[in-house]
Amino acid sequence: MSYSNPDKKKIARLVAIHKEHRKKRNPKTLFTELKKGDKAALSEAITLLESAKEADQKMAATIVRDCLPVSGKSIRIGITGVPGVGKSTFIESFGLYLIYQGKKVAVLAIDPSSEKSRGSILGDKTRMVNLSVHPSAFIRPTASRGSLGGVAQRTRECIVLCEAAGYDIILVETVGVGQSETAVHSMTDFFLLLMLAGAGDELQGIKRGIMEMADSIVITKADGKNIKAANLARSQYKSAMHLFPLNENKWSPQVETVSSTEKIGIEKVWQIINDFVKLTKSNRYFDLNRKEQQLYWMHESIKEQILQDFYSDKKLAKKLSDLTTQLNNGEITSQEAAKKILESQRNGKKNL
Amino acid sequence: MSYSNPDKKKIARLVAIHKEHRKKRNPKTLFTELKKGDKAALSEAITLLESAKEADQKMAATIVRDCLPVSGKSIRIGITGVPGVGKSTFIESFGLYLIYQGKKVAVLAIDPSSEKSRGSILGDKTRMVNLSVHPSAFIRPTASRGSLGGVAQRTRECIVLCEAAGYDIILVETVGVGQSETAVHSMTDFFLLLMLAGAGDELQGIKRGIMEMADSIVITKADGKNIKAANLARSQYKSAMHLFPLNENKWSPQVETVSSTEKIGIEKVWQIINDFVKLTKSNRYFDLNRKEQQLYWMHESIKEQILQDFYSDKKLAKKLSDLTTQLNNGEITSQEAAKKILESQRNGKKNL
Repeated sequence: MSYSNPDKKKIARLVAIHKEHRKKRNPKTLFTELKKGDKAALSEAITLLESAKEADQKMAATIVRDCLPVSGKSIRIGITGVPGVGKSTFIESFGLYLIYQGKKVAVLAIDPSSEKSRGSILGDKTRMVNLSVHPSAFIRPTASRGSLGGVAQRTRECIVLCEAAGYDIILVETVGVGQSETAVHSMTDFFLLLMLAGAGDELQGIKRGIMEMADSIVITKADGKNIKAANLARSQYKSAMHLFPLNENKWSPQVETVSSTEKIGIEKVWQIINDFVKLTKSNRYFDLNRKEQQLYWMHESIKEQILQDFYSDKKLAKKLSDLTTQLNNGEITSQEAAKKILESQRNGKKNL
Repeated sequence: MSYSNPDKKKIARLVAIHKEHRKKRNPKTLFTELKKGDKAALSEAITLLESAKEADQKMAATIVRDCLPVSGKSIRIGITGVPGVGKSTFIESFGLYLIYQGKKVAVLAIDPSSEKSRGSILGDKTRMVNLSVHPSAFIRPTASRGSLGGVAQRTRECIVLCEAAGYDIILVETVGVGQSETAVHSMTDFFLLLMLAGAGDELQGIKRGIMEMADSIVITKADGKNIKAANLARSQYKSAMHLFPLNENKWSPQVETVSSTEKIGIEKVWQIINDFVKLTKSNRYFDLNRKEQQLYWMHESIKEQILQDFYSDKKLAKKLSDLTTQLNNGEITSQEAAKKILESQRNGKKNL
């Protein structure tokens, strides 16, 4: 939109848009429109959620609270895998397949690297060409302001908003490095790990422990010359998964191959997720897990805030650095160092 | 020792023992004797460490501080596996083998269940018949007073004491359930997972994620009719481990079979540990890891203390319980619940 050579008509239109915009920013109207499935309202609400302004955050909190009673009915699916595994292509195919099944699909993303390389977020939308323009799809990367804990909390509230807006399937995407997997695993019902066939352990680059979180491993790019390798990988991962101890939810993780470009195996993945949901709803793990996740995030929030308050005390920073040096030199035990830093803090508080 | 029919001689002897005992409880003399390798002094020092009395704890802290400069030279090996896998029998064989190689071996244990079933601790000593009476071995279960964090911290200081007393190899044993694995993994150089062949996933009972922590998996009871199954398990776990992403330390975990009773494979386990130490000392991971562990435990100590202070506030307990109910009923978000509880606490502090 260009502001050069403005004429009266243009100005009037801009004012109208602005007024409309202001009207939407009222939490009640925003909620009403969002509940009808209005994407612009949903976007607006998420923007408020991500805003650093206190007034915006208050509005967002009101909207989220209103959304709570009409949320929770989706299936929340976490998807991870290293860059290059074909996450976007898979989500494009899988999302369109789900829409074809009559579902409404929201795609959220936790991308801890996005602060540095904002390109990757935009990249996703352009890679999901058909999904991103589909009326039944909503794609929104989570802004990465603040700590992983903060981002994760906002993403969880995003899920609530999307569910209130009528999305049946929420896909939460993340990159297979760092701690964001644990966060996504703790906010979804089903955790999907995408892997490449024959890439060699080093190239897979995923963090240890993530494989054991997966409810299903999907070998991507199972097409053309790659089919044989993909099938081999499938049987290897299958026997590996078999050696893992059984999940609390009695689900034994499944391994599949897909070709996202040739749309092969996509429906099988959906079948697996349906089997999982059926099993865990019948043994009540599904609801139990969601309740546990809520409690987990409450305590995580508390922990994060308390520790942040503690470590942001600038007077302690010097002390902490001195003690770390002493610790590294073997002059003091971890226990003693902790005791000293806590004493400093208590004395500091007394002197206020 | 019976106090009935006491005669003067007996009383004099008891007084002498008591005086000797008092002398030993002086931290300086205790340290001197401990450094000479005196087991009674080492035991005494650990008892002080585990005592709930503040005076004892102060003495213990002095001794640990004195021990620090002469500690750190051992290889610290974590050993886990479910009950029935043959941990005690393995440790008996492995410990005696190490002693035969000229080593001094200390065995510590973190047993989160021991508070309930104190028998398991005594059981260990009676099962390690030959090791427990050997002059070059020291077996001491860690008392389980307090939280896992507290127990773990004391076990770490126990390691320092044992090292100062000249023990070359410290074996820290735990049961393959719960969070104690992570604690033991974070205080040792090498993590050994004992597994049974053909026990079926459910029977293994270990927690998910533990397999990926292992630097080596050892299949126990590879003797008699069990040899074939053990070898099969070995090759299965070998290919499974191969699929895991490589460790930060560049070590690829090894899988072995042993028969503790027939003493087969024991020397191979020691060879693996030596290879690991050689590799990680040459790529400097060994020292780096120890430094990281120290920092980790300092921050763990701080975190535990701060959170304990927070959650022990009785005024908050009612509020927390109310909010948990609201959370479970879907009337409030985790974020909001956390905010409210933190506000309560701040207001509570203001009103003091």
